[in-house]
Amino acid sequence: MGYTLFTANRNYSSWSLRPWLLMKALDIPFEDRLVPFAGPDNSQEFRSFAPNGKVPCLHDGEVIVWDSLAIVEYLAERHAGVWPADRHARAWARCAAAEMHSGFSPLRNICPMSVGVRAELIAVPPSLQNDIDRIAELFAEGLDRFGGPWLSGESFTAVDAFFAPVAYRVRSFDLKIGAKGQAWVERVLAHPAMLDWEAQALAETWRDAAHEEEIAGVATIREDHRAA
Amino acid sequence: MGYTLFTANRNYSSWSLRPWLLMKALDIPFEDRLVPFAGPDNSQEFRSFAPNGKVPCLHDGEVIVWDSLAIVEYLAERHAGVWPADRHARAWARCAAAEMHSGFSPLRNICPMSVGVRAELIAVPPSLQNDIDRIAELFAEGLDRFGGPWLSGESFTAVDAFFAPVAYRVRSFDLKIGAKGQAWVERVLAHPAMLDWEAQALAETWRDAAHEEEIAGVATIREDHRAA
Repeated sequence: MGYTLFTANRNYSSWSLRPWLLMKALDIPFEDRLVPFAGPDNSQEFRSFAPNGKVPCLHDGEVIVWDSLAIVEYLAERHAGVWPADRHARAWARCAAAEMHSGFSPLRNICPMSVGVRAELIAVPPSLQNDIDRIAELFAEGLDRFGGPWLSGESFTAVDAFFAPVAYRVRSFDLKIGAKGQAWVERVLAHPAMLDWEAQALAETWRDAAHEEEIAGVATIREDHRAA
Repeated sequence: MGYTLFTANRNYSSWSLRPWLLMKALDIPFEDRLVPFAGPDNSQEFRSFAPNGKVPCLHDGEVIVWDSLAIVEYLAERHAGVWPADRHARAWARCAAAEMHSGFSPLRNICPMSVGVRAELIAVPPSLQNDIDRIAELFAEGLDRFGGPWLSGESFTAVDAFFAPVAYRVRSFDLKIGAKGQAWVERVLAHPAMLDWEAQALAETWRDAAHEEEIAGVATIREDHRAA
């Protein structure tokens, strides 16, 4: 028994990273099942373990938890430290994580996560600039209000995990998110679990055409640190 | 003191409907603040009460809760009945609500909520059909597993509130979501709080050009029950 977490490629799968990182950061043990992307539509294959045909998906015995934010709340009922203990910080952290969960589609579409790549954006449309500005504001607000070094205070919580893919995007595309935001980015990139994820991403030799085309369509690739 | 909930037009604002309906259905009192949409970008005006410039937003004294799913979790810490008591039903309900929160963009974009309108879709692309099929599957699963009459069992919970905008869309565009799903749609449409919302939507004389153009671009309008 125990948890099994289904995720996809370390290099590309920003949704997978969130619960994986949270569970690693909180020392919650789980069986780690990576199912790589293959082709533009993986929903049929992924439906063998997730009813919505997507990653991540957590299995806990017979219970199947198929959404990243629902995984967080499922874990929060069972483990301390998923959300901050202070009720103000917790309300803020849930809002920020949920804002990421449903929003920021220009950032997601124009700056796809590709951990090993460094690239220059062809254009920064106003919708993307709005997202970057909003994230800079959100990061600064959390760090100021709750005293850092993590977004909702002293401990790494689910809100840090939810924005961890943004840290890779900031590095890959050299996004400017303010001094406070940048300090958080560097902190999260140096987290041992993030370094582990990154090492696995760089070691991957899978290349998924849909993901590669997505990034090639919006940016000029300057460096690629992935294993050939 | 007490709660204040900021929402936008009854006719258009599917995001507003969710927490409004949940609070009404659970008899949680709140001050109801409607700020109508005006023009294609309301974010500056909405930023006067919500840091992300969007509706809905809940104020509880000094606490500002600016995302619909975070509002649900905030209320769940303070009021019984927001989520089902059974842990299996609760995990399922959270997953389904979160799947709606981050997904179904073809359904949202091609079938925008307009409570008073009945329309015929110009086309049903495969992405929309996939969304409709997935929702039919999800509704049937919840009703079968937890015994109905609501999606996660005997009581109306946050998952019903999260899918309530889908009920208006099913009616407006005559979407086929299976016999079980259709029975739930009729049940939720007949909920007293939904009837109240609908009556307010029909009485509205505001017309927001961006929302009207959105629906006119995807469907032929057959009936419009709104006050002139």
